[in-house]
Amino acid sequence: MSHHDELIFPEERIFGPDPRQRDLAMYLYQRVAALPLVSPHGHVSPRLFSDPQATFGNAAELFIQPDHYVFRMLYSQGIPLERLGISPVQGDERRPSPRSLPPTGEGADSESLAPERRGQGERGILETDPRKVWQLFAENFYLFRGTPTGLWLTYELYHVFGVRQKLNGQTAQAVYDQVADKLAAPEFHPRPLFERFNIEVLCTTDSATDPLEAHQAMHASGWKGRILPTFRPDELLDLQRPGWSEQVGALSRLSGIDVGDYRSFILALENRRAFFKHMGAAATDHAALSPYTTELTANEADAIFQRALRGHTPVDDNDAARFMGHMLMEMARMSIEDGLVMQLHVGAYRNHNLPFFARFGRDKGADIPIPVEFTRNLQPLLVKYANDPRLALILFTLDETGYGRELAPLAGHYPALKLGPPWWFFDSLNGMQRYFDQVMETAGLYNTAGFNDDTRSFPSIPARHDLWRRASANWVAGLVVRHLIDLDDAEAMIEDLAVGLAKKAYRL
Amino acid sequence: MSHHDELIFPEERIFGPDPRQRDLAMYLYQRVAALPLVSPHGHVSPRLFSDPQATFGNAAELFIQPDHYVFRMLYSQGIPLERLGISPVQGDERRPSPRSLPPTGEGADSESLAPERRGQGERGILETDPRKVWQLFAENFYLFRGTPTGLWLTYELYHVFGVRQKLNGQTAQAVYDQVADKLAAPEFHPRPLFERFNIEVLCTTDSATDPLEAHQAMHASGWKGRILPTFRPDELLDLQRPGWSEQVGALSRLSGIDVGDYRSFILALENRRAFFKHMGAAATDHAALSPYTTELTANEADAIFQRALRGHTPVDDNDAARFMGHMLMEMARMSIEDGLVMQLHVGAYRNHNLPFFARFGRDKGADIPIPVEFTRNLQPLLVKYANDPRLALILFTLDETGYGRELAPLAGHYPALKLGPPWWFFDSLNGMQRYFDQVMETAGLYNTAGFNDDTRSFPSIPARHDLWRRASANWVAGLVVRHLIDLDDAEAMIEDLAVGLAKKAYRL
Amino acid sequence: MSHHDELIFPEERIFGPDPRQRDLAMYLYQRVAALPLVSPHGHVSPRLFSDPQATFGNAAELFIQPDHYVFRMLYSQGIPLERLGISPVQGDERRPSPRSLPPTGEGADSESLAPERRGQGERGILETDPRKVWQLFAENFYLFRGTPTGLWLTYELYHVFGVRQKLNGQTAQAVYDQVADKLAAPEFHPRPLFERFNIEVLCTTDSATDPLEAHQAMHASGWKGRILPTFRPDELLDLQRPGWSEQVGALSRLSGIDVGDYRSFILALENRRAFFKHMGAAATDHAALSPYTTELTANEADAIFQRALRGHTPVDDNDAARFMGHMLMEMARMSIEDGLVMQLHVGAYRNHNLPFFARFGRDKGADIPIPVEFTRNLQPLLVKYANDPRLALILFTLDETGYGRELAPLAGHYPALKLGPPWWFFDSLNGMQRYFDQVMETAGLYNTAGFNDDTRSFPSIPARHDLWRRASANWVAGLVVRHLIDLDDAEAMIEDLAVGLAKKAYRL
Repeated sequence: MSHHDELIFPEERIFGPDPRQRDLAMYLYQRVAALPLVSPHGHVSPRLFSDPQATFGNAAELFIQPDHYVFRMLYSQGIPLERLGISPVQGDERRPSPRSLPPTGEGADSESLAPERRGQGERGILETDPRKVWQLFAENFYLFRGTPTGLWLTYELYHVFGVRQKLNGQTAQAVYDQVADKLAAPEFHPRPLFERFNIEVLCTTDSATDPLEAHQAMHASGWKGRILPTFRPDELLDLQRPGWSEQVGALSRLSGIDVGDYRSFILALENRRAFFKHMGAAATDHAALSPYTTELTANEADAIFQRALRGHTPVDDNDAARFMGHMLMEMARMSIEDGLVMQLHVGAYRNHNLPFFARFGRDKGADIPIPVEFTRNLQPLLVKYANDPRLALILFTLDETGYGRELAPLAGHYPALKLGPPWWFFDSLNGMQRYFDQVMETAGLYNTAGFNDDTRSFPSIPARHDLWRRASANWVAGLVVRHLIDLDDAEAMIEDLAVGLAKKAYRL
Repeated sequence: MSHHDELIFPEERIFGPDPRQRDLAMYLYQRVAALPLVSPHGHVSPRLFSDPQATFGNAAELFIQPDHYVFRMLYSQGIPLERLGISPVQGDERRPSPRSLPPTGEGADSESLAPERRGQGERGILETDPRKVWQLFAENFYLFRGTPTGLWLTYELYHVFGVRQKLNGQTAQAVYDQVADKLAAPEFHPRPLFERFNIEVLCTTDSATDPLEAHQAMHASGWKGRILPTFRPDELLDLQRPGWSEQVGALSRLSGIDVGDYRSFILALENRRAFFKHMGAAATDHAALSPYTTELTANEADAIFQRALRGHTPVDDNDAARFMGHMLMEMARMSIEDGLVMQLHVGAYRNHNLPFFARFGRDKGADIPIPVEFTRNLQPLLVKYANDPRLALILFTLDETGYGRELAPLAGHYPALKLGPPWWFFDSLNGMQRYFDQVMETAGLYNTAGFNDDTRSFPSIPARHDLWRRASANWVAGLVVRHLIDLDDAEAMIEDLAVGLAKKAYRL
Repeated sequence: MSHHDELIFPEERIFGPDPRQRDLAMYLYQRVAALPLVSPHGHVSPRLFSDPQATFGNAAELFIQPDHYVFRMLYSQGIPLERLGISPVQGDERRPSPRSLPPTGEGADSESLAPERRGQGERGILETDPRKVWQLFAENFYLFRGTPTGLWLTYELYHVFGVRQKLNGQTAQAVYDQVADKLAAPEFHPRPLFERFNIEVLCTTDSATDPLEAHQAMHASGWKGRILPTFRPDELLDLQRPGWSEQVGALSRLSGIDVGDYRSFILALENRRAFFKHMGAAATDHAALSPYTTELTANEADAIFQRALRGHTPVDDNDAARFMGHMLMEMARMSIEDGLVMQLHVGAYRNHNLPFFARFGRDKGADIPIPVEFTRNLQPLLVKYANDPRLALILFTLDETGYGRELAPLAGHYPALKLGPPWWFFDSLNGMQRYFDQVMETAGLYNTAGFNDDTRSFPSIPARHDLWRRASANWVAGLVVRHLIDLDDAEAMIEDLAVGLAKKAYRL
């Protein structure tokens, strides 16, 4: 290991350069660094924990192949996914939603969906040797300089796996060996890591038609880790989603209610919510392109629902959007009744790159944000339900322009509303600083919902909470050095940011 | 008083942590800290000054009940307004404007306007004891940590009322007593405070159909405080506003011109502007949802006006918007002719929370910003009038995305255009920093209009100017330490920011 | 020269105030300060270099009259352009494009286009004495405090012309004399300055119908300066542009292809691209109001093209937009085939101020940005061509809200996409800081294209690169002091920012 390959990861990282602010940030950070991790929203698979023998596989399987943050960057630099050991998908998964088709001219669609007829860059041969995948990744790790992904990966290598070399082409194989040694040890299995990470509670995200077998197996095993399901009914609420009628069939089977009209659809959804709540769920989660809400009469909703179910005439974009907008209001109503916290994530245009989607499927780093308007779109739901403190509605956006213009003023007025932390592309040091800067003065800290790690990668959880806690400490320290708050306030605020706000907002 | 209840409010507050920048900011601030306050736009009632015996009432009446910044935050945390001593309103005030109805489904309107049939959160019993209101406020004062409202209130308690305890549940009654003692003293009546605050000029905002009796009484009393009216004709220009025809009736009465068509409407408006100018007005003020402008022919304008006046067929949204867009252009024309500075505030969606509005009325913290486009919307007015330096048009926005993209480039070209300071939700330390950051490089300092306190709360005026002067000093100091300007420039700039720009822009 | 007139321009300028960050920024800056300048996009005239006797004229001709950054600010403060020696234009140049007409009421157009009938501010008498122009400029130079234009001009005066006095009304004539002395010397002619500035390569921007005579003359002269043309076909792709059919005629003549239909139009464009490439071009450049793309069939494209060519029925807005959107896709296809890098600049609403445009013509500081949406508008082009690494597409925007929301996620996925540096109004210290802040975490440094100076003013080139290199060094130093990267990373990054990224992105 040459001098230049040494990995330095100082305790004062993240904090701003001013000595007074830095020392104060360190003091505040250290007050909360060892607090348990509360993870109220994310995408870790419960199957990692239902089977006591589950492992994380090799370094490529752990760090590269499941992480769209990682391979999107490599792909953007011309590296085919096949060379990272990622295979093209087969069958239904790659059917695009009709709404995601771009507005192209006549006769153009067939071509834009036929990538093999176009120059699509080199196709790699599928690489099956994880060491070669890792080598390629390491040689390109410099691409992540200054990115949150680079920071998270460095944290994981340094703190979870004890690596002390910078990852690059020269050190790749030595680092691979060190990670492999650790992963082979029992204490690096998912359950022991869950305990070592000091996770107080971890919420998964589960389809409304998931029977929650993994959660049931976990309970049955007697393991004490607190892992809660979250109710996500997107596939049932989007009438244009491929496979929607199969989802309705599954809903009928699981609820025991024969879903043949709008009324039975509502009853079956309520039934599934009750089941999730019985299994420990604290929240629901909803993804929508837009926060558009509207209230249909039962007859209107039924007419659209029946058209979708019969399938004779397709549901058009307008009806699908109205139905989704109406169902978001229904979800708010149900949340008032059953107490499940309602999360709403809006603004991701999914599967933007159609030929890439046709080849590799969903969640491959090709979802792109769009502008989002909240003030008018969300008004019907807010005026009807958000004066009621029994509702807890947590909003997430990929359009930061709404932070100060719409979201903070809304959260600073409606009792039911809280703002979720910076999401996805903005779950970064600068993203957090912009969030603190643009949200807090107007919404107030106590109308925010603390931190979500939102990760698919279990070993990244401590890295993500560590970044949030450091960024929070740095922000609060900045308030103290400018005398906007005093030290007593700062100590209360950092504890709320680290744990308290998330537990309160999610009723955990 | 425990150690932890001590209120520290250091002289170096607001300034950034770097010692060189901080010391320089302090030097610049101190050059302007004692300059008179120039307040060219705000909402203080002239009646406070027309009656020499007027007082501010008790602490709840002074700090809480009139201040939507304060009670919106408490309401957002589930505290009913009644528990703050705020009564529901009666009668006409709560009729919503037709345009603010949300797009709900058929049959839904009646329900969304009938809050008593919905879960609207707990209704408090009206609290009539100001000490209990103050206690509840004090217990929740931590909600304002890091907010501009918290900073202003702290300034007022510390500097205006001499309080040296942090406000919380323990100190609430002692602070109440101390404020009560002061408020009882003659030197805490409005006129003496006006003089103690060293206010050079204060502009109120007055309906076009206000007879300005309070201003006349002030003049008649011989008191020398310079308080000027501002001409605000919104209620006459928005044809869909409830009570519009009553306003037209008042316009006829006050102007002595029988307003029966568009031509007499214009003449009557010109008459009222002349009266306001005679009473000392320097400016007009206009609020609009959008900066849309358009030019109608006199015949088109008259046709729409007559429909509104006859009331047989209602004026639709499109005609109302075109009439408003046309009248904004007429106001620019009149400003060229009579020299009144024209202010335009756009982007607030008023009374967003309909059942809450039906219960409590306007200006209760439920106005929410929307996205605003200036480049195309304002073009008809700008190309026709804004090359003429006789016009002074000052723009205000609640959509910060326009600062760098549209407003600064427009102000950096059109001779008549100036940018107003950060408004409403952005009248905060971070809001000011973003304004300096995003506006000044492109517009240039000299195309901005200095500071407005824009407050309804008279005792908050010094607090707001103090924040602006400190934030300005900190920004200018940041330019010096990076050697973008030298100290001579800095000294000139801080004086312009504190007083000079506002006086020049408003021709005061 | 009084003490207050001394011009101080310290070597540590631009860097932030923290001593550790500042020293590190200085270290990084000094590593790249002397590297050659790579200028892959700009608007310097090649005629300055084709004639070995060309000069820059006097100080007003050099600094004021060609620079819209300078005179827009003076105009915004009420100074008529005529007093700066800028003459109204004659004839065709001032015909507005039909699409830029504002939506005014009937009968209004004729008035808004007849400025002489309106109050348009004082008209100056054309000032022909450059010393008087310079005096007026100097008296108003304080308007540029804190602006990038002020910083560039100061750099030029200090470093290029050796001036040591602050420019103001007192020093104006002495500075004029000093600049005049320098400009008279042979070493201040364009070619010697090109060499003194250490410019490795300079790309001009040239109409597709420019015969590139100046570039040919440069080659023929034997001078070794590397100045490359760039292919800009806007005038041919916008069917509504005044003079379009004359442009098509010129295209026929220059290409030797009789352009009578869409197919021959495409062939002729390919022919011109080949000629530009033969003349050394590395790139094409495209300006569009919106990044809208769409794919037409050849028959659809031909039908629209023929309508435009015949001129019997005018091409409507919709057809013109579809044709432009289709042609942008064709330009991407050609770039894949011929390897020319494709630049796309969007979002400038040109010639906003119609009566001013009618009087003074294009490029006079009256272009104003509008909001821009990329995710959906650019999708047809991206899905068809941007998976192919043979394409290099560099995007520029005037709507910073797209940096984090759309552009960085797109560039962080599509292999062909790179983000250009902050453009026009954002080519400033704060603009660069916002760009680093909002782009880099998501896109990654290596999906950006380094720096463009984009200037029309040759002597400002070193000033602009110096600002970029300093701002870059300050940003990278900020990453190091927060331990987000180490010093090895920092040294690599600053070299890439200064030169490497631009050369790679533009294949120079």
